[in-house]
Amino acid sequence: MGRKAMDPEVRRQQFIKAAEELFRAKGYDKVTMSEIADRVGVSHGAYFYYYKSKEELMRAVLANSVMENRRYLEALASAGEKTALEKMRTLLSLTISAFSTEHEFMDFAYGYGNADIFREYTLMSREANVPLLVEIIKQGNREGSFHVRYPEDTMKYLLFVFENLYDVIGSARDDRKIYARKMRALEILTARVLGIGENAFKLTD
Amino acid sequence: MGRKAMDPEVRRQQFIKAAEELFRAKGYDKVTMSEIADRVGVSHGAYFYYYKSKEELMRAVLANSVMENRRYLEALASAGEKTALEKMRTLLSLTISAFSTEHEFMDFAYGYGNADIFREYTLMSREANVPLLVEIIKQGNREGSFHVRYPEDTMKYLLFVFENLYDVIGSARDDRKIYARKMRALEILTARVLGIGENAFKLTD
Repeated sequence: MGRKAMDPEVRRQQFIKAAEELFRAKGYDKVTMSEIADRVGVSHGAYFYYYKSKEELMRAVLANSVMENRRYLEALASAGEKTALEKMRTLLSLTISAFSTEHEFMDFAYGYGNADIFREYTLMSREANVPLLVEIIKQGNREGSFHVRYPEDTMKYLLFVFENLYDVIGSARDDRKIYARKMRALEILTARVLGIGENAFKLTD
Repeated sequence: MGRKAMDPEVRRQQFIKAAEELFRAKGYDKVTMSEIADRVGVSHGAYFYYYKSKEELMRAVLANSVMENRRYLEALASAGEKTALEKMRTLLSLTISAFSTEHEFMDFAYGYGNADIFREYTLMSREANVPLLVEIIKQGNREGSFHVRYPEDTMKYLLFVFENLYDVIGSARDDRKIYARKMRALEILTARVLGIGENAFKLTD
């Protein structure tokens, strides 16, 4: 039973998975490189061979997350049986639930000292997702449910709201009433921007 | 004619003014601390007495800008003779013109490596301005021109769009046609969010 050489790409995926789990569970600042190496089951030397720093690994985690989100969005955007309204409802509800459940990630992303990494993540995400989101808006225009004159510009503006949601709802996570009000305000805003009835995105009660 | 001791607060204002002029004219990265000291007419030692680094001075410049904007907004929000619609039109057109004229500042603020400073600036600005902006929305609701159910949350969401405008219009500054389209999309979005006719904010032609 000789030791089999690990495919570097597989190893990278192991690092990304381990780091992501640890970052989410404990928060970026509290995770050490040793912990990540232990979880992958390699020496610290092997860690440094792949990633020069925790920050570099964090970037890989974020790039991986951009790709995963894009794959999901690609499948959703091209789902032939779904209306644009259904697609947009799904996205809105996923976004809202991410903000309510992924505390550790959100606290990291918006925490002081991480703004440059997070800015990179935001720009990568936009580049990956805007064209697919624009397709959904155009579909809604064709179906007659949305009324958006400038789909690309409007989608970008709307995305700015979603990217910054944490600043409005992050601190309200523990107060159900305030949280519900903020969500309702968001649903109304989204509906108005897309030129559709205010209750089109009513997800909360 | 003995040398008169300079009031430290006056000196600080001189540093802020000199730094702001230089940052705007040449861009933050290209300005040296020596240049700033020369412009104020003090030794480098005196500079360090007031500010430990160029970054610290930059923060002072941004804090000063937050205060100036707030003073302006206070006067506008309380201007008894203006309707809320007029006030909001003024703000929209000021924002748009800032993005078209203050290239150096914008390129600094959104450039890589400055995201943490800029995030601080954004949070300071919001804290200073949101209550005043909310007053304007409430005025519009009373006057019957705006129809905004959750003024505070909605204003925050709308502010996210304005805070990130650079990413959409920064690169379009040199193409008048694309720029005008992006502005029109912004005017429509603002009008829809405030529950007012789409042409209420038509500033461009």
